[in-house]
Amino acid sequence: MAKKIRIAVLGATGYTGVELLRHALRHPHIDISVLTADKQAGKHMADIYPHLRGADLPKTVALSDVEWQGIDCVFCCLPHGTTQEVVAKIPSNIKVIDLSADFRLRNLQAYETWYGHAHLAPELQMGAVYGLPEIYRDKIKQARLVASPGCYPTSAILPLYPLLKKSLIEPASIIIDSKSGVSGAGRALKESSLYAEVAENFYAYGVAKHRHTPEIEQELSVAAASEIKISFTPHLLPQSRGILSTIYVQMKNGFSAEKLHDAMGEFYGKEKCVRVLPIGETPMTASVKGTNLCLIGVCAGRLPGQAIIVSAIDNLVKGASGQAMQSFNIMHGFEDALSLSLYPLFP
Amino acid sequence: MAKKIRIAVLGATGYTGVELLRHALRHPHIDISVLTADKQAGKHMADIYPHLRGADLPKTVALSDVEWQGIDCVFCCLPHGTTQEVVAKIPSNIKVIDLSADFRLRNLQAYETWYGHAHLAPELQMGAVYGLPEIYRDKIKQARLVASPGCYPTSAILPLYPLLKKSLIEPASIIIDSKSGVSGAGRALKESSLYAEVAENFYAYGVAKHRHTPEIEQELSVAAASEIKISFTPHLLPQSRGILSTIYVQMKNGFSAEKLHDAMGEFYGKEKCVRVLPIGETPMTASVKGTNLCLIGVCAGRLPGQAIIVSAIDNLVKGASGQAMQSFNIMHGFEDALSLSLYPLFP
Amino acid sequence: MAKKIRIAVLGATGYTGVELLRHALRHPHIDISVLTADKQAGKHMADIYPHLRGADLPKTVALSDVEWQGIDCVFCCLPHGTTQEVVAKIPSNIKVIDLSADFRLRNLQAYETWYGHAHLAPELQMGAVYGLPEIYRDKIKQARLVASPGCYPTSAILPLYPLLKKSLIEPASIIIDSKSGVSGAGRALKESSLYAEVAENFYAYGVAKHRHTPEIEQELSVAAASEIKISFTPHLLPQSRGILSTIYVQMKNGFSAEKLHDAMGEFYGKEKCVRVLPIGETPMTASVKGTNLCLIGVCAGRLPGQAIIVSAIDNLVKGASGQAMQSFNIMHGFEDALSLSLYPLFP
Amino acid sequence: MAKKIRIAVLGATGYTGVELLRHALRHPHIDISVLTADKQAGKHMADIYPHLRGADLPKTVALSDVEWQGIDCVFCCLPHGTTQEVVAKIPSNIKVIDLSADFRLRNLQAYETWYGHAHLAPELQMGAVYGLPEIYRDKIKQARLVASPGCYPTSAILPLYPLLKKSLIEPASIIIDSKSGVSGAGRALKESSLYAEVAENFYAYGVAKHRHTPEIEQELSVAAASEIKISFTPHLLPQSRGILSTIYVQMKNGFSAEKLHDAMGEFYGKEKCVRVLPIGETPMTASVKGTNLCLIGVCAGRLPGQAIIVSAIDNLVKGASGQAMQSFNIMHGFEDALSLSLYPLFP
Repeated sequence: MAKKIRIAVLGATGYTGVELLRHALRHPHIDISVLTADKQAGKHMADIYPHLRGADLPKTVALSDVEWQGIDCVFCCLPHGTTQEVVAKIPSNIKVIDLSADFRLRNLQAYETWYGHAHLAPELQMGAVYGLPEIYRDKIKQARLVASPGCYPTSAILPLYPLLKKSLIEPASIIIDSKSGVSGAGRALKESSLYAEVAENFYAYGVAKHRHTPEIEQELSVAAASEIKISFTPHLLPQSRGILSTIYVQMKNGFSAEKLHDAMGEFYGKEKCVRVLPIGETPMTASVKGTNLCLIGVCAGRLPGQAIIVSAIDNLVKGASGQAMQSFNIMHGFEDALSLSLYPLFP
Repeated sequence: MAKKIRIAVLGATGYTGVELLRHALRHPHIDISVLTADKQAGKHMADIYPHLRGADLPKTVALSDVEWQGIDCVFCCLPHGTTQEVVAKIPSNIKVIDLSADFRLRNLQAYETWYGHAHLAPELQMGAVYGLPEIYRDKIKQARLVASPGCYPTSAILPLYPLLKKSLIEPASIIIDSKSGVSGAGRALKESSLYAEVAENFYAYGVAKHRHTPEIEQELSVAAASEIKISFTPHLLPQSRGILSTIYVQMKNGFSAEKLHDAMGEFYGKEKCVRVLPIGETPMTASVKGTNLCLIGVCAGRLPGQAIIVSAIDNLVKGASGQAMQSFNIMHGFEDALSLSLYPLFP
Repeated sequence: MAKKIRIAVLGATGYTGVELLRHALRHPHIDISVLTADKQAGKHMADIYPHLRGADLPKTVALSDVEWQGIDCVFCCLPHGTTQEVVAKIPSNIKVIDLSADFRLRNLQAYETWYGHAHLAPELQMGAVYGLPEIYRDKIKQARLVASPGCYPTSAILPLYPLLKKSLIEPASIIIDSKSGVSGAGRALKESSLYAEVAENFYAYGVAKHRHTPEIEQELSVAAASEIKISFTPHLLPQSRGILSTIYVQMKNGFSAEKLHDAMGEFYGKEKCVRVLPIGETPMTASVKGTNLCLIGVCAGRLPGQAIIVSAIDNLVKGASGQAMQSFNIMHGFEDALSLSLYPLFP
Repeated sequence: MAKKIRIAVLGATGYTGVELLRHALRHPHIDISVLTADKQAGKHMADIYPHLRGADLPKTVALSDVEWQGIDCVFCCLPHGTTQEVVAKIPSNIKVIDLSADFRLRNLQAYETWYGHAHLAPELQMGAVYGLPEIYRDKIKQARLVASPGCYPTSAILPLYPLLKKSLIEPASIIIDSKSGVSGAGRALKESSLYAEVAENFYAYGVAKHRHTPEIEQELSVAAASEIKISFTPHLLPQSRGILSTIYVQMKNGFSAEKLHDAMGEFYGKEKCVRVLPIGETPMTASVKGTNLCLIGVCAGRLPGQAIIVSAIDNLVKGASGQAMQSFNIMHGFEDALSLSLYPLFP
């Protein structure tokens, strides 16, 4: 039996950290060696999350106390902004999969504009690979540092990339209306995440200025081979998991929803974690809950030349920890979906 | 003290019926004289809805057993399609406020196309007034038959009407992305309304073919003084009440979100049941829960010339029974908001 | 028209504070003169709670900046423990209704045992009246300081008081299994109140040691005219509002559930805010949502001599702000239910 | 590689059926050969449950069209009452695991009393084994027909069995206050299962007369070696999955909660699907969501001699399909937990 890959999970007590453990615990080739949790260092995970009682996990340690020797791969589940300096200190022989936004924007100026400060590890940024496996599989295989995509961007880029790549839609016409479960805001304590304020409530936020905008634009610009801007509106759903993005596009002259659907199907035909539904059908978030799937539906719109595309992911899986594990699998020569569920818990 | 107005509520046991009773019970000038409920005729409302225990309400009767004499006004809360024939049999001296879709489309051909059969009471349709008080107050005052608007249309027409009326936006550019709580589907028994299938789930439905489309187009065409088509996508929220519509429009050359906001504020300045938020702010459904309010926010979009407008209503109040009561008040010379809450239950 | 009563609400930005405003805003004899909010002093309530936009309310001030002159009555919605010193500084001509636990325990030693420190205003405690209107109406009428009951105690004392008073049940046999919506934990920021940790979850907490235990025991001991202990287990429900208490008792020899039901009906026959259901029926929390009602059901148990009593209240209304307003009404000579809803929002 | 075991799932489209498929799909030794669905015969499962898209499953057939040849084991997920006659017609060489209540009561008279009609397959009942693996493992190994326990009974019997077996508690003192998620009511269409009536609501039902009572009493009587009666009160939770039972018992003289805890730990020490928490700790339903675990906590009560025991299961897994699969594993010589998750989806 091959030696297991020893991983460290930095920031193991947030929602993306604990979701990563769900997958890592059943991964046949992973040895979970280090868990960090600054505020709660020294605790057992089961004391923080009772559902992990019984899991064979090391105690948490402070980030500064991590012994890097012997670690093969780091999953970094730390908050945005703090990650750059942390990753800069990890020995360079260790692979890093970062779930924060810190290494996603290749344009350092764009980073500064949207995040309000100069990038603190620009040289690392140069070598980072954007961890969307269906687009960058070959680069991920070779990468030392993978910047795992944001949840909204995953739901928006996967359906739009093939359409722009194949010049089927007008790049200036894209409107992305996204709705996310509240776990996307993490475990941080704020009034807007309280049960009594989320339940039986729904609203848009960050209209025309959410930080995932440049990330989506970066990848769609690659696909279109030109700089493009998009309209992106996130909303908060009264549910824990799930993102649904309803995307409105204008097709280029002569194309139809059928043509878009064909192109999408062709592009993702062999993928295990992306599925294109029959034309005219659209997905539910319940169909991806707990899974690493992205489901995509394509419909004709009512306005002339309009198509409507709907995508669904679980923000904590394909939108975060599952996708990071998918990159891990690719980096280590395993199948994409190893240890990742493809059937949801329903109901 | 003036004589009370005697009302009949047809279909009193559905969600719109029982919501209507909530308002009627505290209306100082209403005497609830007749309640119909075909399947459950002969029951006390409190046996069907325990929360109505203690309310002074007549027993339900079958529709065929109603004695119309002495009734002044009928609220018709029956399912779509069945209402036309029912209303045709109500003595013509009785005012009727219909909450179904049966009398909303002035174009009988459009009715036939979207509802699949010829209209059964075309002469009544001729005299029906579309019951959106902020637009048709004067006609409602004189009406015998008011066709109270649908929930989605209310959330879409209120924000768009002034913008089209004042020619501030491109009529061919309108995209309405709407999200509704599940009470909009009524109390009918279907798998898609079960708790276990609604909770922790979200999806679009009826993409590009929902029956509220022609209703929205009818009124926006009036505003624009030309035939227009819109893109309308409804979604189902895991919550009981509330509609939020996120609306994307292209402004006509030379206009800005500020200008749209000013126009909206001017149009609704004196209205009690429509409020325009400060520019750049957008509403929550929790802010209208249980109230007859429509809140509207206006933002600049990221695409050139784009504005994003967000509206929120409670689908059972301003989107149904509350608006019907608002029309009742107007028809009888009372203030719009009499008996209608303007502060929600929160949390 | 009589002069309005000028009130101050201390701690207006918590859930009990904002719920109190919902009732006060429609009270015909109240002038809301002062709102305090230490952390957010200087803000408009609508900036903290958008659903209050449009309400005619003063800006919040820091507690230390309140000018007491002209104030007639104070609603104190501050956290437990901090209230004693605050109330001690309010001029003695001003009536005070305190919603915290600070003045509920008449036994200062019991207070110290359960709350971990000596009482800071023992002389005020001497004059405080326990504000359960159905039991202490006459004392409330004369009170200067009313200690409004806790939410769980309200749901437990109301059904048990008459049974003990009339010696129908064994005082040593009482088991109270209570379940509460999460708004009972207030707006304080803690992981256990986050949407993602409350939704689709249910559990007991504070088993055999919750601080509401001595409060329940105090009042039941009064009823029984002897010191009694009870078994009380609170649970957290995945919903915002509502408490349901399922209470198991042994009847004294010769009594039946019917007898208990009769006694209960007789005791509460004239009350507007307590309703006894037909024997064998039990209430839902949805039937009291947003109302100041306590509903009580009485059933025969399966074990010999056992009766099962189920009560339902809205923890923020009859369990907090509504009951405080009921005491206000009694103190000022109004009807109990003035400004308090008796029909819930449903669904 | 060994030949796979060919199973038929009767009633595959209900919640227990579809949950069974979730486990069967990842079971290494199962071949899902037949699925029945009378009303929806001829459909693909993915047309009924979109989350099953992509699963390799046979089309559904009508029960009358099943070809039994080659089938090794049947999971019967049909409604109560209809199962007896169905099972009677299954060839006797095929093993049967029945999830309904039809074969759980060994006393045919008790069956008739609680279910309102004489048992239709009394001879089959004689050979049925009550499928609670932790109690009846040896009998399950040999069984042809396993009657898989009800959800509430599983949550009640597991904690109480060892205490009665070891004579630590008074058999006449048992009060079981249970709370269940709504999936326990299945996918049947009824108003009480609608989202709008379950959400933000909580109530008791079937007080002192729920049909799971005799099933609990049957097994506890075995443990106590005497006929006992219990008090059992079920409640409906606003969540999809999960049962929590709060159990009040009187200890026999000289025993303490610690002693009960020790006995429980000893009894379940080697079990994979039952875990006893440290004394004084109690479980959450979220900790078992989607898993085949039963978690049990033991606390001292406040009343003299009282102990409080809290158990948590997922009603669809350990309370239904997972436990049935556990029996399947035992019947076929596999480990109890094969294909059954022991870590939940959280949040």
